[in-house]
Amino acid sequence: MSLKLTILGCHSATPRESAHPTSQLLEIKNHTFLIDCGEGTQVQLRKYKIKFSKIKHIFISHLHGDHVFGLIGLISTFRLLNRETEITVHGPKGIKEFIVTQLRLSESYAGYPIKFHELSSKKSELIFEDKKVAVYTIPLSHRIYTNGFMFCEKLGERNLNMTEINKHSGIEICDYQNLKNGKDFKLENGNIIKNSSLTHAPTKPLSYAFCSDTSYNESIIPIINKVNLLYHEATFLNDKIDLAKTTKHSTAEQAATIAKKSEVNELIIGHYSSRYKSTDDFLKEAQAVFKNTQLAKEGKIVTIN
Amino acid sequence: MSLKLTILGCHSATPRESAHPTSQLLEIKNHTFLIDCGEGTQVQLRKYKIKFSKIKHIFISHLHGDHVFGLIGLISTFRLLNRETEITVHGPKGIKEFIVTQLRLSESYAGYPIKFHELSSKKSELIFEDKKVAVYTIPLSHRIYTNGFMFCEKLGERNLNMTEINKHSGIEICDYQNLKNGKDFKLENGNIIKNSSLTHAPTKPLSYAFCSDTSYNESIIPIINKVNLLYHEATFLNDKIDLAKTTKHSTAEQAATIAKKSEVNELIIGHYSSRYKSTDDFLKEAQAVFKNTQLAKEGKIVTIN
Repeated sequence: MSLKLTILGCHSATPRESAHPTSQLLEIKNHTFLIDCGEGTQVQLRKYKIKFSKIKHIFISHLHGDHVFGLIGLISTFRLLNRETEITVHGPKGIKEFIVTQLRLSESYAGYPIKFHELSSKKSELIFEDKKVAVYTIPLSHRIYTNGFMFCEKLGERNLNMTEINKHSGIEICDYQNLKNGKDFKLENGNIIKNSSLTHAPTKPLSYAFCSDTSYNESIIPIINKVNLLYHEATFLNDKIDLAKTTKHSTAEQAATIAKKSEVNELIIGHYSSRYKSTDDFLKEAQAVFKNTQLAKEGKIVTIN
Repeated sequence: MSLKLTILGCHSATPRESAHPTSQLLEIKNHTFLIDCGEGTQVQLRKYKIKFSKIKHIFISHLHGDHVFGLIGLISTFRLLNRETEITVHGPKGIKEFIVTQLRLSESYAGYPIKFHELSSKKSELIFEDKKVAVYTIPLSHRIYTNGFMFCEKLGERNLNMTEINKHSGIEICDYQNLKNGKDFKLENGNIIKNSSLTHAPTKPLSYAFCSDTSYNESIIPIINKVNLLYHEATFLNDKIDLAKTTKHSTAEQAATIAKKSEVNELIIGHYSSRYKSTDDFLKEAQAVFKNTQLAKEGKIVTIN
């Protein structure tokens, strides 16, 4: 089991040549999820050699430009690449009008099915699941309706303990699935072998929480509690804590405090304001509170095993 | 007098790292006009160190994404840069809804006046003028309502012939403006000196015609006749003339034919399809018909004196 996060953009506000607005790619189980889509995201996807066709779900946190202005371009490019597979866009109520208005006025069509999953609940809700993965919203506190997203692997099958299995000639390959599903094994003589002696517990499922943009908001702690990896925005340093409050953003120290109180394993911060020349102080400020912090950086890949 | 054209993007369809969609900057008289605004245009403006505040008029040829998807981002960035000056967007009917819908849904506001000048005429019309410059539409033939734009300097003042003027002690500095305006000079003794002997004819005004996107369309020839510089799209080579016809684009040879028949001074072509690995053949094909052709290229500056 592994989870791979690629940072496509991690800066706030306006795009610059070496500072792309928010976008991330999460590979979890068989899924390739795109999270947020600032202007230029499609170019970043090409730069990091990500196959457009793999993306089947896009999650948009909120409708501020630095998180969504690249979506219409990506949707148009999908068509030019002759996409046929359905895409689902999960995002705030309004995301459909946002995209459909532009398609209509440009007399364009997608050419493949687009499903808009519009969100409006202010409580955390399950917005996607299949056998292996579940995605929940994380209601955030920003100037506009905003959700973070919590991506969770589901508890998988039990792992076969081949050393033990091979001791019993009666257990055949066709029995393996039952063992993986947790069933005990009945020998021909009627004796029962407990599943726990033939299998190991399933690998602990991994989870990733994406939280951008938000003011310091302790109400998310129970939702993201103990996730393996937390991305939390850190637009400012503590020198601008008042500005963070007014604009409903967070400081690096606040992001780290949330990570600490949520007992997450690892924190990655980003969404830096362009007023700061370097990001070094963001790391210093956050690590003072939560040691296992790293800085988001375009092209950075974080893998959790 | 001079006219300076900066190519910000000159490729068709989807943006790639080294292939930006259509956008150009024209500096003519005291104006800095932005022409078309594909995704990523604001980053290109920064790259070529163009002051955002200088742009007061934006001309959008049509509402296909590779000519307009960067506009909302630029408009948003203007606000983040604390712009106060009015901006006028000249573009097809629908451009206002295109932008205003996105501003409304992202709960944003421009913070400075935006004027939308929506176009719907199928005939060439004057869409902007002041004392020194006039801008006309060039109705093009594309899959969607599209205009090219014709930027014309106005005939300026006459130039003083100081050698002749200095021969007459009665002509003072305060008389110069009348001379520039073409008035004859009356000496104290009542004798008249003809203006033509005291001034030279004004510098010949310059003009630039921007034509993208369009199928081969001879009806534009009278409009762009004898312009100093013509940009004409050349999406395909002649090997794809059928595809050019279907998609209502032009080939390099067709662009050159229009240039030749319009007796323009200089041609610049662009909007290359990504199917071609190199642009060399575009130049070869166009120059076979119209020698004074050059290829558009990101960052290229064409100056006409």
